[in-house]
Amino acid sequence: MTPPLALGDLQRRIVAELGPEVVVSSDTALYARDDGAEGPFVPGLVVRPTGRAQIAPLLRLCHELGVPLSPRGAGTGTVGGCLADHGGLVLDLAGLRQILDIDERSALVTVEPGVITAELQAAVAARGLFYPPDPASSAKCSIGGNIATNAGGPRACKYGVTGAFVLALDVVSGSGQPLALGHRSLKGVTGYDLVHLLVGAEGTLAVTAAATLRLLPQPAAAFTLLAAFPDEAAAAAAVLACRRAGLSPAALELADRTCTRVLLSAGELAVPVPEASGALLWIELDGDEAGLDRALRRAADCCRDAGALAVELAGDEPTRERLWSVRRALSYTLRARWPRKISEDVAVPLGRLPELIAAARQIGARNRLDTASFGHAGDGNLHVNFLYDPTADPSSPQRVRAAVAQLFTATIALGGTLSGEHGVGLAKRPYLPVEQPPELRDLQRAIKRAWDPKGILNPGKKI
Amino acid sequence: MTPPLALGDLQRRIVAELGPEVVVSSDTALYARDDGAEGPFVPGLVVRPTGRAQIAPLLRLCHELGVPLSPRGAGTGTVGGCLADHGGLVLDLAGLRQILDIDERSALVTVEPGVITAELQAAVAARGLFYPPDPASSAKCSIGGNIATNAGGPRACKYGVTGAFVLALDVVSGSGQPLALGHRSLKGVTGYDLVHLLVGAEGTLAVTAAATLRLLPQPAAAFTLLAAFPDEAAAAAAVLACRRAGLSPAALELADRTCTRVLLSAGELAVPVPEASGALLWIELDGDEAGLDRALRRAADCCRDAGALAVELAGDEPTRERLWSVRRALSYTLRARWPRKISEDVAVPLGRLPELIAAARQIGARNRLDTASFGHAGDGNLHVNFLYDPTADPSSPQRVRAAVAQLFTATIALGGTLSGEHGVGLAKRPYLPVEQPPELRDLQRAIKRAWDPKGILNPGKKI
Repeated sequence: MTPPLALGDLQRRIVAELGPEVVVSSDTALYARDDGAEGPFVPGLVVRPTGRAQIAPLLRLCHELGVPLSPRGAGTGTVGGCLADHGGLVLDLAGLRQILDIDERSALVTVEPGVITAELQAAVAARGLFYPPDPASSAKCSIGGNIATNAGGPRACKYGVTGAFVLALDVVSGSGQPLALGHRSLKGVTGYDLVHLLVGAEGTLAVTAAATLRLLPQPAAAFTLLAAFPDEAAAAAAVLACRRAGLSPAALELADRTCTRVLLSAGELAVPVPEASGALLWIELDGDEAGLDRALRRAADCCRDAGALAVELAGDEPTRERLWSVRRALSYTLRARWPRKISEDVAVPLGRLPELIAAARQIGARNRLDTASFGHAGDGNLHVNFLYDPTADPSSPQRVRAAVAQLFTATIALGGTLSGEHGVGLAKRPYLPVEQPPELRDLQRAIKRAWDPKGILNPGKKI
Repeated sequence: MTPPLALGDLQRRIVAELGPEVVVSSDTALYARDDGAEGPFVPGLVVRPTGRAQIAPLLRLCHELGVPLSPRGAGTGTVGGCLADHGGLVLDLAGLRQILDIDERSALVTVEPGVITAELQAAVAARGLFYPPDPASSAKCSIGGNIATNAGGPRACKYGVTGAFVLALDVVSGSGQPLALGHRSLKGVTGYDLVHLLVGAEGTLAVTAAATLRLLPQPAAAFTLLAAFPDEAAAAAAVLACRRAGLSPAALELADRTCTRVLLSAGELAVPVPEASGALLWIELDGDEAGLDRALRRAADCCRDAGALAVELAGDEPTRERLWSVRRALSYTLRARWPRKISEDVAVPLGRLPELIAAARQIGARNRLDTASFGHAGDGNLHVNFLYDPTADPSSPQRVRAAVAQLFTATIALGGTLSGEHGVGLAKRPYLPVEQPPELRDLQRAIKRAWDPKGILNPGKKI
């Protein structure tokens, strides 16, 4: 932990160099948690820059005084990646919210890290352009956080995750050195690909001051199918069938039996779903109308061939939006029913998805826990939730820990990875050795030293 | 340079540990050049592993004895990236040609580095799967070299470059440490993204022993349009119009006036092209038939609106293949006419492409050089060739050097990069400071030290 004396010294220097207004003096307890279960870690100091030019002098001070700092975007992460568990300061980037440039001819946008993802999407949509990545928290999360975690979301199925859209980054390294990385061209191989080393690095290598993202033209149209299946195996078979049929859905999202029962009992769904349903699949198709008609028919056929009980088309915008808001809210809906849940984020090769769903169910049963799995079936990325109530059942937290470890072992055995998109942060750190041997972790520590010689950037996270 | 004594010692140890058959004893002069103008550098020792398990012991020996090595795939690079200009040995990976696994359900393929790109494409196509990256040399180049250079090609326009398909790599670091990087799932954020740090690193950080690549379903159909324009500005306008119309062509390739005249006079083109043409555009559209009809009409409209003199559809396979073989051979066709050419590989933001084409032409004229530009217009990546004949015009090499420097300055001013896909190798190394300041190059050297503490892997390349 950072001694209070060093923090006091740092605060005086920050006030002298950057002005008193950058120091957040009230409500620092709001920075003690993110959207997950880690914490609380109330930071001793919170600094909120009012201009991105303040980041480099601030990092130079932290470097000089050896004070750790944890960059924070909108705080919507779920693994504690932005929490100051090592003490030091929290660098709140939410005030840097300028969209610096929209280049329509080249289909590029340059933004500050605090820009909210949905606001970025709306701003470029007003010019006929499309920024596909859509984490479930897009209305609240920031692009800097999306870059730090390499955030995904349903549309990663067709368009790829955040990293697939990042062309250039203005960053500041751990020694306070500003660096312009990447290029505004779509391709480029001059020097190492440092942009994609930083994407997903959870703020452990550098702090993002600005990002240039590539954009696509807005799709002419989009339709959503909701298909209901007797069980998850049938839904997973439909996912594979869609991919093999050459369909390229914008999203292919699955909800398991528990999620389906919760949604049915809440009467949340915007289209009729049979009571016997044990799994749901959202299929989003976009493109131009001529191709879409045929793609919708083929997707519906894939679902029916896999045993769908019903396939409903949401053509109008309000119904589509309703269906998707139900999907986006699933994590919150579950949390409202179960006092505590641990949400995992495992990913496996596409063909192993049915085995992963079955393994998650068995592991839950073996540990006497309710499980609810949903997520990005088109990517093989499943959010497995172990649901528990430590008040009613004091031994449940211990069984959850056992279940998580078993899920990770099963995932690795299927050729998968511990985290598809949520990141490592604090929550997954104890499990890293399950996936990465010591020599690989040593190498990553050496890379971190190259960027951050004193190890002040979000120490102990990610690697 | 490596002292001959150290090489002799190394060779004895290699023979003792790996057997005499891995040492190439004849025709080592064949390793003195690649497909560009650098060299010759005849290596003192060439080692050609017969199994990928030999790579780690070989690198451990080189590390121990401090002997540099240059990995080499098929030798089709154009910037000298595989040449042993620092002495030491050439590591010839062309013998490692096994396709280790095709996983149809998960749409993954795992290969050794020496597998020829076209053979990989054919092998997965036989299972209904599609590996999109298609460098012009695909019939000869190897996947290991494609990964080392992050090779592009026409289809990068829609599908992305090689790196977009690499999920996992088995590599050996500069100290001889085997490392398994990445994952077989489509998404994953456990640890840093080391896979994409290695893609394009030109063998300076590690040697690839095996790669797992994601695949797509084969598109149901593909059509090629060839459009002829009075000049390059009109062709570049058509490129932007296609993008803005929301079309997603698999390829959008441009040839300038010089290239067009050469192709017309050679009678090479498979479809009728007006004599007055001053620029050509190849537009490839793929997908399912329903969508393609409409896309073809819209692409043709975009071309005609931009002033096309003719728009020809190549629907049948032999005509399409003929058109593309003409495009792929363009570099060789030019070389047959001009004794020497310097082929640059600059890339700019899409909207700046017309300015780049004009700048290349002006720079050629100012330096009294013929220029021929062609390439991946849909990516803003242009191959600018300065054509010269040092025998007839002894001062021309000096003027070429001036023109190259001016082209790079113009490219950077347009927000672009020195190399879109060919790499740095030896040829671009002197120009790196034009794009990257000292602090960025220092950081990359520190990253290299983490992978390769003694600096034996392809020293002096890339950074």
